[in-house]
Amino acid sequence: MKDINQFTITQAVKDSFRTEEGSRFEQLLHGLIEHLHDYTREHQLTHEEWMRVLMFLYDCGKISTPERHEFILLSDVLGFSALVDMINSKGGATEGSNLGPFYLDDAPRKALGADLSDGRDGVTVLVRGKVTDNLHNPLPGAIVDTWQADASGTYPIQEQAQGQDKMDLRGVFEADETGRYWYTTVLPKPYTVPYDGPVGELLRAGNRHAWRPAHLHYIVRAPRMASITTEVFFENMEYIDNDAVFGVRKSLIAKLRPVKKGEDLGVTTDKKPEAVVDFDFILAPEG
Amino acid sequence: MKDINQFTITQAVKDSFRTEEGSRFEQLLHGLIEHLHDYTREHQLTHEEWMRVLMFLYDCGKISTPERHEFILLSDVLGFSALVDMINSKGGATEGSNLGPFYLDDAPRKALGADLSDGRDGVTVLVRGKVTDNLHNPLPGAIVDTWQADASGTYPIQEQAQGQDKMDLRGVFEADETGRYWYTTVLPKPYTVPYDGPVGELLRAGNRHAWRPAHLHYIVRAPRMASITTEVFFENMEYIDNDAVFGVRKSLIAKLRPVKKGEDLGVTTDKKPEAVVDFDFILAPEG
Repeated sequence: MKDINQFTITQAVKDSFRTEEGSRFEQLLHGLIEHLHDYTREHQLTHEEWMRVLMFLYDCGKISTPERHEFILLSDVLGFSALVDMINSKGGATEGSNLGPFYLDDAPRKALGADLSDGRDGVTVLVRGKVTDNLHNPLPGAIVDTWQADASGTYPIQEQAQGQDKMDLRGVFEADETGRYWYTTVLPKPYTVPYDGPVGELLRAGNRHAWRPAHLHYIVRAPRMASITTEVFFENMEYIDNDAVFGVRKSLIAKLRPVKKGEDLGVTTDKKPEAVVDFDFILAPEG
Repeated sequence: MKDINQFTITQAVKDSFRTEEGSRFEQLLHGLIEHLHDYTREHQLTHEEWMRVLMFLYDCGKISTPERHEFILLSDVLGFSALVDMINSKGGATEGSNLGPFYLDDAPRKALGADLSDGRDGVTVLVRGKVTDNLHNPLPGAIVDTWQADASGTYPIQEQAQGQDKMDLRGVFEADETGRYWYTTVLPKPYTVPYDGPVGELLRAGNRHAWRPAHLHYIVRAPRMASITTEVFFENMEYIDNDAVFGVRKSLIAKLRPVKKGEDLGVTTDKKPEAVVDFDFILAPEG
């Protein structure tokens, strides 16, 4: 190893890890070493630049908490998270998109037609659709787990100190015997990802904003089907073309339209909706 | 941007940063995005693997302090630091090697011939050599700034709580009018890089040890010459062929030999040496 130079060091580093040949760990580690070394060589990184990268990571570590994970945010704004979502979306199924930091796995079950707004101001929207497999067969009893921001772009979980209930604007619905789900809620607003840390500095250095278009979060699952984690966006809404975290896909954009006077919406709801969004989820088989 | 897929997202992310065209910042950022995205696509990273990487970085952040910088350590064990040293070594000059975490920029000036051991046990070694430019012209008054571990592989700065003086085993020497420097010290021993954190876990997962071969650290500078940060190792010593941080270069290995009975060492020293190491430093002009 003492004869290494800037071209042979990459193989030496790979060889230093005595991993199981052909294992996934070896592939991922070798690939990472190759890309990092190639990057360093191609750009002839100086010591100052190298230290800048390491101090950036250090600063990301310092600001991180279990609730504020700056490395996930970094991955988000560099499109790395979206790319992993894309790679792992199954053909024929609804495309995946960001999980985000606000999911809770114990949100309350609610009856179809319930209202999630918990008295919050805003436009009342009926969200409805069906859950099917990729051959259009309905999936009765499919679980539609949703969470969202309010009409000011805030998640109740962010405002617990101000007395909000973190379980507000969340619900877990079970699709009916025809695979249909429906509920009402308030129309969410755009909000920014946190930009008071090193990732915010990176965005400013690149003249980028921190806004996400308004969206609804979903995890949808059914027995023997691969679950999907995704988001639903609204046509023509602000930031739809430049989401700070690259979460928007064309197939995830729904049309928001006003309820027509006297319109039969075909479902019963606890609260009278002013607007409607239709969005169907398609799940592909597991494996 | 809403039409992006796993192949077009890379360009979309690059375009989202509105950087000065052709600037160094743009080049470094675009290069990093390309490599990270290529890596993700080539290896079809799953969500679990992606989260494992991000949690690893999170854990590195949590254990880091200004004195214990886990990201530098990560860079070291992946050969990234060594590669930056190699890339930035100037042709004709002494090769660069790791700065390490223990440098202090205010170590005491010492007279040529001084002993750095401060009463510590161990083999007393005379370290001597000359500092020249790359045309072999001596550089009188060149500064040789050195620091090292003791004969148990510990830096005094690590043992301040046990009453050690952090300035021990350090010294800043000024080369004489012929460019020569000399001093005595104790022969250092190998030691491990910290392996109680996430980087240690990575080493264990790859069946790697955490040892560095014994070495002396140097920063050498002279007016109008590019400074060098490097390390000097000892021929045939333990771990010389598998330094955990890839710091060893063939050109940085010195011969350690016993002082012969009645040998004229050509220099006066405060303490009588038992062994000698000769090592010359070559500086290249700045710029």
